[in-house]
Amino acid sequence: MKVKDIGEFGLIDRITRKSKDKNVLVGIGDDAAVVKTEGLQVLTTDCLVEGDHFRTDWFSAKQIGMKAIEINISDIAAMGAIPKYVLVSLALPKDLDVKFVEEMYQGMWDSCDKYKIDIIGGNMTRSNQIVISITIIGEADKKNLSLRSGANPGDLIFVSGHLGNGKAGLRLFQENLKGFEKVRKSYLEPKAQLDTALKIAPYINSMIDVSDGLAPEIRHICDESKCGAIIYKDKIPIDDEVRDVAKALDEDEYDYALFGGEDFELVYTVSKDNLGKVNGFLVGAITENKEALLSFKGKEKKLSESGYDHFL
Amino acid sequence: MKVKDIGEFGLIDRITRKSKDKNVLVGIGDDAAVVKTEGLQVLTTDCLVEGDHFRTDWFSAKQIGMKAIEINISDIAAMGAIPKYVLVSLALPKDLDVKFVEEMYQGMWDSCDKYKIDIIGGNMTRSNQIVISITIIGEADKKNLSLRSGANPGDLIFVSGHLGNGKAGLRLFQENLKGFEKVRKSYLEPKAQLDTALKIAPYINSMIDVSDGLAPEIRHICDESKCGAIIYKDKIPIDDEVRDVAKALDEDEYDYALFGGEDFELVYTVSKDNLGKVNGFLVGAITENKEALLSFKGKEKKLSESGYDHFL
Repeated sequence: MKVKDIGEFGLIDRITRKSKDKNVLVGIGDDAAVVKTEGLQVLTTDCLVEGDHFRTDWFSAKQIGMKAIEINISDIAAMGAIPKYVLVSLALPKDLDVKFVEEMYQGMWDSCDKYKIDIIGGNMTRSNQIVISITIIGEADKKNLSLRSGANPGDLIFVSGHLGNGKAGLRLFQENLKGFEKVRKSYLEPKAQLDTALKIAPYINSMIDVSDGLAPEIRHICDESKCGAIIYKDKIPIDDEVRDVAKALDEDEYDYALFGGEDFELVYTVSKDNLGKVNGFLVGAITENKEALLSFKGKEKKLSESGYDHFL
Repeated sequence: MKVKDIGEFGLIDRITRKSKDKNVLVGIGDDAAVVKTEGLQVLTTDCLVEGDHFRTDWFSAKQIGMKAIEINISDIAAMGAIPKYVLVSLALPKDLDVKFVEEMYQGMWDSCDKYKIDIIGGNMTRSNQIVISITIIGEADKKNLSLRSGANPGDLIFVSGHLGNGKAGLRLFQENLKGFEKVRKSYLEPKAQLDTALKIAPYINSMIDVSDGLAPEIRHICDESKCGAIIYKDKIPIDDEVRDVAKALDEDEYDYALFGGEDFELVYTVSKDNLGKVNGFLVGAITENKEALLSFKGKEKKLSESGYDHFL
């Protein structure tokens, strides 16, 4: 059965659930959702486009749904905020199988259940390629808000986990390489680092998630915090299997980590006083001068601006 | 200059503005926006897809941007709420002209300025066709909240303005008809009825906006309010120029009004006690039995379910 056979309303009946949250006064089924809130709301939107962010011959429908939620949770996490509500805007080809849409939504619900959040609204329309736009609204405590602009000279720079998996996974599929199941899975099923973010948020000065690669994320922090940074190349944590993928393809694993993107780990800066309160991989330091540098074997060079660019 | 020549960050620099709203703590430029809120938040998302909701040879870039905002404001209006903040998720072909994107954004800003609201966040990605997903967050006063579920038997049904313009305008372009400038403009530049909505919200029992046509909107109210309705066909307000378009094409103007959609007028139900407090075109009444009927020359027939379906 195709999407065109049951139409928008038929589909909506199959994929929606009633919200159990008592603060959701109106959920799916009216012109807009209504929620009771207080304090600081954090709002983010991101979209996944077929062919650019996923291919249906690489990802299962469920994995696509999960990824759509995770990448947005990652943005909320990077603010030090708690995700609460989700809106889903779907553009679907009319010949898409209804089962595919149901499984994709199941993936979204699975991720939402993990974070105890609700899909409270959305809309559906027709298109040539699958486009999933997700908006997530979260709540923040002002003292835990972690902006890109809070870094101070002297802060140390940490990352929450290994980098380069996203790009290495993409290269596996592009080059049709077999094996490397760990990397493959981390590419197909990226996870937001919400627990880590909430744990460290009270003790850090700035934070961002790695969606475009470590280099552009560091540059965002430098630009917004009006400071510089030095990154020690050999301190960047890279999984052995990512190194093996790079080796098999005669590529550089540090290119994956610095410019690859889609790792959804966190980058954060911490003052020396709070070092005992956070975990993570130390990769560098924030500096006074406004340059972002990469240091390797005692030599320093400018940290290139060219991260993964969706338009290249 | 094409989108691919300046990339995501180059584009963002050209189209964003700093928010002047003191409740916007963090605007564009971080992982998420942060706003200070209180009370009831109303959230809606809707998307415009090239080829389905607009064609670039029919609409100017500015008109596309305006339409993207207006259709979402219309949903907030239909809740009796006040729009506040906008998130924009854009999927753009890499060969699109940068000037087109700038003009489209100008159209969005023009509509936002009219409603005194701010674009506080968004994202941009690559696609084969232009997809504009908009999320609008508004604030509601509980006593003015106008749901689809509030209609009561005995309520009278009103519409805020003429219906059928959206479909008549679409038919002009599809059939390459000259003239009919008023209808053409109302199709290219639809306007949300926010002022009307806020004026009547305290006095009505239910409300919805006409995005799919009068018939499906009435059915939504009946379904959600667990009641029926009778619509008097010859009371449906239709502009003379819409009648002329239908005549020129040998079509039925009531089909435009009932099933055409994209009029963005409001449909609302009012108890007899509050009749003196609202304006609009009286088109019918809410009934006890759960059928939705269309009455014409003393005869009644079932109000067909088949409104404009985005998947047909």
